[in-house]
Amino acid sequence: MYVIYVASIRKGRNMKISVIGVGYVGIHSVVNLSKLKQVSKVVAFDINKEKIIKYNDGIDVTSEVGNEEIVDSISNGVVFTSNESDLKDTDIFIIAVPTDASTNGELFLKPLISASSIVGNYIKENSIVVYESTVYPGLTEEICFPLLQEKTGLIIGSHFDVVYTPERVDPGNKINTVLNTPRVISGTSDSAVEIIVQLYSNYIAEMVKVSSIRVAESVKILENTQRDINIALMNNFAILMNEIDVDFREVLSAAGTKWNFQKFYPGLVGGHCIGVDPYYLIHKMKKTNVDSSFIEAARTNNEGIINYIENVITQNNPQKILFVGATFKNNCNDIRNSKNLELAYKLSNKFDVTIFDPEIEEFKNIGLSKKYDTVVVAVLHDNFDYSIIFDNFNGNLINLTNKKITNETWRLI
Amino acid sequence: MYVIYVASIRKGRNMKISVIGVGYVGIHSVVNLSKLKQVSKVVAFDINKEKIIKYNDGIDVTSEVGNEEIVDSISNGVVFTSNESDLKDTDIFIIAVPTDASTNGELFLKPLISASSIVGNYIKENSIVVYESTVYPGLTEEICFPLLQEKTGLIIGSHFDVVYTPERVDPGNKINTVLNTPRVISGTSDSAVEIIVQLYSNYIAEMVKVSSIRVAESVKILENTQRDINIALMNNFAILMNEIDVDFREVLSAAGTKWNFQKFYPGLVGGHCIGVDPYYLIHKMKKTNVDSSFIEAARTNNEGIINYIENVITQNNPQKILFVGATFKNNCNDIRNSKNLELAYKLSNKFDVTIFDPEIEEFKNIGLSKKYDTVVVAVLHDNFDYSIIFDNFNGNLINLTNKKITNETWRLI
Repeated sequence: MYVIYVASIRKGRNMKISVIGVGYVGIHSVVNLSKLKQVSKVVAFDINKEKIIKYNDGIDVTSEVGNEEIVDSISNGVVFTSNESDLKDTDIFIIAVPTDASTNGELFLKPLISASSIVGNYIKENSIVVYESTVYPGLTEEICFPLLQEKTGLIIGSHFDVVYTPERVDPGNKINTVLNTPRVISGTSDSAVEIIVQLYSNYIAEMVKVSSIRVAESVKILENTQRDINIALMNNFAILMNEIDVDFREVLSAAGTKWNFQKFYPGLVGGHCIGVDPYYLIHKMKKTNVDSSFIEAARTNNEGIINYIENVITQNNPQKILFVGATFKNNCNDIRNSKNLELAYKLSNKFDVTIFDPEIEEFKNIGLSKKYDTVVVAVLHDNFDYSIIFDNFNGNLINLTNKKITNETWRLI
Repeated sequence: MYVIYVASIRKGRNMKISVIGVGYVGIHSVVNLSKLKQVSKVVAFDINKEKIIKYNDGIDVTSEVGNEEIVDSISNGVVFTSNESDLKDTDIFIIAVPTDASTNGELFLKPLISASSIVGNYIKENSIVVYESTVYPGLTEEICFPLLQEKTGLIIGSHFDVVYTPERVDPGNKINTVLNTPRVISGTSDSAVEIIVQLYSNYIAEMVKVSSIRVAESVKILENTQRDINIALMNNFAILMNEIDVDFREVLSAAGTKWNFQKFYPGLVGGHCIGVDPYYLIHKMKKTNVDSSFIEAARTNNEGIINYIENVITQNNPQKILFVGATFKNNCNDIRNSKNLELAYKLSNKFDVTIFDPEIEEFKNIGLSKKYDTVVVAVLHDNFDYSIIFDNFNGNLINLTNKKITNETWRLI
């Protein structure tokens, strides 16, 4: 039996939508939904009160949409809040909380479980709960479904619906964006899926319906694991190339002349997706008795490269290091789970290290005029001119990025 | 000191070229070089006498270039031979022998060593020895160089040169061919590299010079290992998908809507490249104390999938099986190292199995009118119409290819 949606939702009018978790995923829904005339109210809920204060001050803490969009959304009536009661009377809940993991494979499901519990307090008949977080195949049904039903006393598929549509955000990527990347979707009823498809289609290029939530969960975990294993090969190969004194850049450039070569680069895998999602896959494989040693070995390669790089830098006997780049990747301002920052801190246990990153308040205004014998380059943001650092520098330049800088003495690739 | 080439080679005229190893790699050199007017003589040498008899009967045993090209090359004066003395007075030796390995990681270097020894008997001052076989980074210098120098008493780089230009043949691929795929090249002198570049440029789209033989060796081994690890992920994931009853085809199709998803498919990895070359990389990694467990895990996944498939088929309780496809991949007639044929033989130990493959003499004319309750599809060649098998078949159809066939009951993807 399918849920029969009340007229307001079915006709796609006057919907109240609450986004739970307003980070680099949720903020896109908040901003884009608030522009639609069929949406009467958008609540942007996050338990992080500091973040909510900043949003209310018109600051895009994620750098994903820009301050102007935040200010506009507030004028459009968006309520940024940490107050649960603001979720009352919501028609559509969008849960976009992080699903992190530790490097020993422990999954951090607390945000997902808490968000589901909070939402459970406000679900009414005909509500739709949309999950956007990356999870292992089966998790939504196995963990979220029972929780929601227990909290509400209502039956999913009869009284309310669950839709799963994993985010495909590449933070900092201004070419392949949330808006122009197709979105995979499935759910517990065709009508609920159709409502979300109609809604998201207002700003997302294409919605790709699949036959089950499990399929959609599998799609997302496969995509990110694919990236992790490909970087794992490059990190593994980069070490061999260094050991036998071959310039890996030359190898990659020549390999790139073959029609089916895939251009991946070695590097530190931080952030909340590529270095995390494979642990969800490993968890499911172990539960299903599928051999996960290949995926685990990829993780070991990508986690291990930080120590290898630290050793190479140490062997260079640096005195005063300028460490360029603190964020987990380029063109973003996120230092959470940043392996680059982790490397900088590791080095600062041994050496005199100054960290510079124009995107991070804390690392923005440092004395670049100071004399450094070694510059380690971990991240180069596209919109900053680094010539102030490189133009007159004659010391050891250790480049961990895939961008070419003159005067390089050692490079990861 | 560089070798000063005699006028005939330096001017690129009247060269005698011998190709050692006339398989799906060497045959391209034989056929294409025999068409050049600066080449006075081409000797196509192979120790396999049966193969040489077939070539002399005008049969392309590789299916790479077609019978007509073989007949034409013979009229152009090519000598197909197993007689070593035909190598006398060769200016340029092209070694294109297989470099295989066992699945426990043992490298089969005998063909490469034998070919080098034979060539060593005929090298004279100013000769160029060109290697095209896939090897690990450093192998040419570590194994072939001493062998050639010992045999000849001449010094590489002073008296004669070695060039390495790894083949990039994808057997059976008529779109990305030897001719239109750029070729990586390096060698012990610029002038020798230049001579081979000039020669090969007559029929290969682009020659990509790199700074050392080691770089060229690394390029090739990286390309093929990349393919192996990507298929390893797909095989790993396919098993999980089967265990949790998700249609992997739907997952792959939906994942393919993301801009950076790489379309690889699960399957049996046979042949002489993808399933073999990673063992060369593993060998070098072990010798260099670089952790090879990731590459080994990929091999384990790809080697293990055959048993998994065998079990799934066995669980279907087949009585009479028609096994379609014996070659190691589609659009070729090579059954050496064919995992598909291996699977067919494994099944025939338990069940009544008939093997059909229109490309293989032995499996071409079988009673397709016989009643089969199960059809296992391992390979579908593009130029054969299989409707005779599938149109009226109502039994279990087990599809291991990435092509869709109606009536499928189980599929690897």
